[in-house]
Amino acid sequence: VTAEEIIEKILAGDVRQAARLMRDLDDGRPQALEIMKRLYHSGGRTQVWGITGSPGVGKSTLTDALLTRLRQQGKTVGVVAVDPTSPFTGGAILGDRVRMQRHATDEGVFIRSLATRGHFGGLTASTRGVVTVMEAMGKDVVLVETVGVGQDEIDVARMADTTVIVTVPGLGDEVQAIKAGILEAGDIFVVNKMDREGANNAINQLESMLALERRGTRGQGWTPPVVPTCAVDGRGLEDLMKALADHHRYLDADNGRILKLRRLERARMELLDLIQTRVMEHLIAKLESMHRLEEIAEDIAAGKSDPYSECDEVIAALLPQ
Amino acid sequence: VTAEEIIEKILAGDVRQAARLMRDLDDGRPQALEIMKRLYHSGGRTQVWGITGSPGVGKSTLTDALLTRLRQQGKTVGVVAVDPTSPFTGGAILGDRVRMQRHATDEGVFIRSLATRGHFGGLTASTRGVVTVMEAMGKDVVLVETVGVGQDEIDVARMADTTVIVTVPGLGDEVQAIKAGILEAGDIFVVNKMDREGANNAINQLESMLALERRGTRGQGWTPPVVPTCAVDGRGLEDLMKALADHHRYLDADNGRILKLRRLERARMELLDLIQTRVMEHLIAKLESMHRLEEIAEDIAAGKSDPYSECDEVIAALLPQ
Repeated sequence: VTAEEIIEKILAGDVRQAARLMRDLDDGRPQALEIMKRLYHSGGRTQVWGITGSPGVGKSTLTDALLTRLRQQGKTVGVVAVDPTSPFTGGAILGDRVRMQRHATDEGVFIRSLATRGHFGGLTASTRGVVTVMEAMGKDVVLVETVGVGQDEIDVARMADTTVIVTVPGLGDEVQAIKAGILEAGDIFVVNKMDREGANNAINQLESMLALERRGTRGQGWTPPVVPTCAVDGRGLEDLMKALADHHRYLDADNGRILKLRRLERARMELLDLIQTRVMEHLIAKLESMHRLEEIAEDIAAGKSDPYSECDEVIAALLPQ
Repeated sequence: VTAEEIIEKILAGDVRQAARLMRDLDDGRPQALEIMKRLYHSGGRTQVWGITGSPGVGKSTLTDALLTRLRQQGKTVGVVAVDPTSPFTGGAILGDRVRMQRHATDEGVFIRSLATRGHFGGLTASTRGVVTVMEAMGKDVVLVETVGVGQDEIDVARMADTTVIVTVPGLGDEVQAIKAGILEAGDIFVVNKMDREGANNAINQLESMLALERRGTRGQGWTPPVVPTCAVDGRGLEDLMKALADHHRYLDADNGRILKLRRLERARMELLDLIQTRVMEHLIAKLESMHRLEEIAEDIAAGKSDPYSECDEVIAALLPQ
């Protein structure tokens, strides 16, 4: 199959070719990289929503509920689950898994799961690649579900147009975790399991923290709403859909000025992630081909050398000044 | 102050010099790197314990309880908290914070917290650096507390001699998360909040999963125990201390064969993390000095280019073949 044929099929929404391209991309095949260059700007109308939060807050149930509502509106949807605990990746209890499986036969839905794929930023680069392919397939919305506290949420936020941070009542630490650096990464906050004790408290705490926070240029003119939901029975879901639509209008206003700022940030991070992954692959392959990596590790472990000196040597040998 | 004087003071356990070195290391000062080369093998008797798990499982309370017991045994302790939600990093509710503060005036304890420090592996490299300095200070035990599900736990495991994975009853997803790839990263499993409903169920599930799992060469001859605890009132803590001592004996047996394997893995990862951080710093500085990074990002965002093509160009320009 030529690159042209593959591109044509993916632009027409072909699931088999899209899945193959994602695999080839992970394997670092040169043809896949060439195809990505040409697919990169073929999408563009897709909305990318990030759904993030700690394990057990109900992200997957919420993602599933959003997916169902989007399908009812006739929209095509891609789901990228970057979470070993997500039912979408097969890592959850049986009941959840069965519930999600409904979507497996729906042609308007394309689900792709990414487990943890090791070190050196490979996961972030892979996730971005999958989102790009789904955009090229013409999906109306791509939902990116990630688990994490801290950096992970920030990385998702940088990739998504709209980031939803999910929490539950009663995790005192949780609200504090949100406070510690990721508050500004969220465009919409969801307090799921709204019937639990302490829900009002959690909502009030979040709202007062958000009121105090100064939004950067990225979020000027937008006050993140706090939406209580109960994802299992659907309460609050309409409010969340409305908040998502509001945020989309906010991004689009003023000739899409804010959306452009976000896309600029995404472009910068995407480039650096790709460079990081490729450079490390290159260096590790080079070290391994000289059998140097194991040698060096053994010298360090044996006390004959240390990682700081060896790092200097590797960099001097492999990077020109 | 000369490098010799700094090294001498740190080897004697000087907290001020140690803290300054950690700061200089984060700032990438050349003198700090030179000192690290000479400190790297000056420790060696220190036991490094990793304590990891999701937010809300009580890792910090457990770390605090272990710390108290180690001090009662007359051991000196370092704590590295890599967790924005940890009371050690000041990110928790007031009660916890006050409780931890007891240790602040104890000269046998050195606490260092690291918040999320951005992209490109900088956090892992920083954490390893802090552990190395604490080893050089002669601490008997270094406790590394991290939050995370997935890759983070695996990274801690690679740095620690003994990794404790903490969970609580009633997080169905949690056990599944452990299943999904990180089971083999744990040397000891703790089911904290043992009075909660479902505790026996969680313990049984973990034990059957551990029985099924094949241990790699790294864990041959060791069956990870599952220890129920209640960190707030101290129940189960003696069992956990015993499990930690058992694991230490296991690592040391057979002339320290298993410990050597772990130190080899740690050396390899430490080298690659350092290289990654340094290479990315180098490349970003180079791109920024040419004002290329913003230019490229703008071209990508404007649809004139794509990250895959730009990555090729950057690599061709900056890395020799």
